This record gives sequence, C-alpha cells and structure tokens, in this order.
Amino acid sequence: VISLEARLLEKNRLLAERNRGWFAGRGVVALNLMSSPGAGRTTLLEKTLRALDRPAAVIEGDQATDRDAARIRATGVEAVQVNTGTGCHLEADMVWHALERLPLRAGSVLFIENVGNLVCPALFDLGERAKVVLFSVTEGEDKPLKYPHMFRAADLVLLTKVDLLPFVEFDVRAAEEAVATVKPGLPMLRASAKTDDGMADWLRWLDLQRV
Amino acid sequence: VISLEARLLEKNRLLAERNRGWFAGRGVVALNLMSSPGAGRTTLLEKTLRALDRPAAVIEGDQATDRDAARIRATGVEAVQVNTGTGCHLEADMVWHALERLPLRAGSVLFIENVGNLVCPALFDLGERAKVVLFSVTEGEDKPLKYPHMFRAADLVLLTKVDLLPFVEFDVRAAEEAVATVKPGLPMLRASAKTDDGMADWLRWLDLQRV
Repeated sequence: VISLEARLLEKNRLLAERNRGWFAGRGVVALNLMSSPGAGRTTLLEKTLRALDRPAAVIEGDQATDRDAARIRATGVEAVQVNTGTGCHLEADMVWHALERLPLRAGSVLFIENVGNLVCPALFDLGERAKVVLFSVTEGEDKPLKYPHMFRAADLVLLTKVDLLPFVEFDVRAAEEAVATVKPGLPMLRASAKTDDGMADWLRWLDLQRV
Repeated sequence: VISLEARLLEKNRLLAERNRGWFAGRGVVALNLMSSPGAGRTTLLEKTLRALDRPAAVIEGDQATDRDAARIRATGVEAVQVNTGTGCHLEADMVWHALERLPLRAGSVLFIENVGNLVCPALFDLGERAKVVLFSVTEGEDKPLKYPHMFRAADLVLLTKVDLLPFVEFDVRAAEEAVATVKPGLPMLRASAKTDDGMADWLRWLDLQRV
C-alpha cells in the first residue's frame, strides 16, 4: 500500500511539473486554495474577482454539483467545475484537463479551489505558484496543530470570517502561535468577505504574485 | 489502483464486522461522529458527556495532537487519542486497538470522533451502530449536496452552532431540502452546545440507541 501511494504521488509530481511549465509558458500565476468545507473560499473569490485588476479564471473542485462554478461565472469570470466523485482532492492531471477548457491569457491569475478538505489536498502538488490555506474563526484556533501537514504545505494562511469574532470564542493570538509552531515564518492575513475587513492586504499579496 | 482500493475497503469491512461483534458482545453502543474540521464535535461531546445518564467512553481521531482526548478526560470520561499522521480517516483496526485501552462496561456508549473530514471517513465502516454527521451553520446550507457520500452514509444529521444563525446567512429550510435531496427521510436535529438549544432532542435520540 505504501509503495503504491508513493507511486501515485510520484506520478502526480511529474504531472504537476508539466502544469508548472505550462503556467510559466503561458504567463499565468496559479494559486491552490485549500480549506475545510465552508471556510468561505467561494465567497472570498467572488469578492476578489470583482476587485482584481488582472484577468482571472477559476477551477472549482467539488465531489458533486457545479454550484461554485456557477457562482464564479455570475461575476463574469470563466470557471470550470471538476467533480471528483468519491475523491478527496484534486490531482495534477485534473488541472491539466481543466486547462484545455479555459481561455487563459498571459498575465492571468488562475485560482484553483480544491476539494474542501484539510487533509488530503496537502499531499498533491498541482504545479501551482503558491498554496493558500484558509481557515475560519468558527473552526477554532487549534486547527493548524491538528492538521499540521496542510499548514506546513501552505505559503499563506488566510483567517476568514473575522466579522464573526465577537460571536465566537476564538483567540487570534493562539491561532497565530499555532501557525508559528507548525511553520515558523508562515504569514497569516485576516479577511472578511462580508465586511471587506482585510481584503486590501489580501489583494496586495495577490498583486505581488507575478510570473 | 481501483482494485487495491477495493481490497483495502474489503479488508476494512471484515475488521468492522469484528468490531460490530465485539460491541454486541460487550453490550456497547458505538457511534461514529463525522464532520468538517471545527464543526463543534468535541464541544458537543463535552456537554453531552456531562448530561448523559449512562457510562461512556471516547475515541478521538486526529492527524496530530492529543488535545481533544485531554478535553474529554477533563469531563471525567475515559478517552483514547488515535493519531493518523497523514491519514485522512479512522479505520476499523484503529478502533479495535483503541478498544484494548478503554475500560468499557456493558451499557456504555462509545463515541468515536473521526478525523475532521467530510470526504474520506464516509467510506470506512468502523462497526458502529450509527453514523452521526455534524455540520455547522457557518459552513453553508449546500454542504449535503457538495459532499453527498458523507450525508448518504449518515443515520442522523446534527446542525450545530445554531446560536450563530442571527450572524450568518444560512437558510435552514434550504439545508433541510439539501439533506432530503441527498437522502430522503434522513433526520436532522439542531443543536447549540453554547446555548443548549436542541440538546434535549439530541439526548433523547441518544437515549433511543440501545444494544
């Protein structure tokens, strides 16, 4: 079993490198957005796409439904839905085939919303420029400690739904310490797609992501 | 790959039947609690264990840390922590080995808090009496549609954190419809471990679970 998993991951690594080459060749910045189900990625994306001053496209990963792709298209941005069935994560070849269906221009940002899952997607490189892990203040400040592989893989952590901080018991300082324990130096930004709190910092971070 | 996954699942099915026999032999009701990370299972368990009029024990599944087992033990109830490393779910043999470390008396309830994940745990029978799937009002009402395998496997859905309903956009009717679409007749209860709203219904459901 372990050797088969290693072979699967090795195959995925090769296909991820092909994706990486494609993104570099096309001049596209790809970001892999990962989180628990319901941490607010699609809502954040809706806001982000409306504020972004670059062309963009989205790949939506879900076990079932094309609800998220429909929400993205309603903002005027192209989106491809990938349904994984019983699968728990996106793999590099799913992204490769989704690229065939997306009209990506040079200078674009490609947001890849992975299957909602703080576990499995951490293991599968998609060829992205950066992994962004969202977690919401309703989930509890210990999540980085309990899902260390995901947070160790991250290049940026976005603490979402900060508008709910007055209504939940969530210790932001403890969350920062948990992130620092799992991966010293990993940056964490705060965002609320509802009140726009923190959106400027997130957009500034995005603006720095260039080919 | 598919045949290997089938063999893994087949092996797990056998070990789950052994667990089922052990539970029947010992006179223990086992419940498999599944949800996204941070849907509030441990907090609900803390409240539940303090209110329960039967002996109980808990198996806590997490990738890392023994925080949840420590929280359970603080209520005076025995708990065993199982760490899965990179693993995304509990398997039947992990439960079997955890049983060796739990002093379970006849008439007890065994709560098994699976790894926080709305995907993979749905596929792995643990030999439990019932699967309880929690989802919180902060996650959005479409989760049953987007994670249908988990909700189809469920015997009960608990909608948690209903104290936050005034502060989030969550349509309870739409959530009920989503549950009914995925699995007609699947019961859904509401609960808040913070305000105790709905706890009586949940305790009544628990009381009906007998060997």
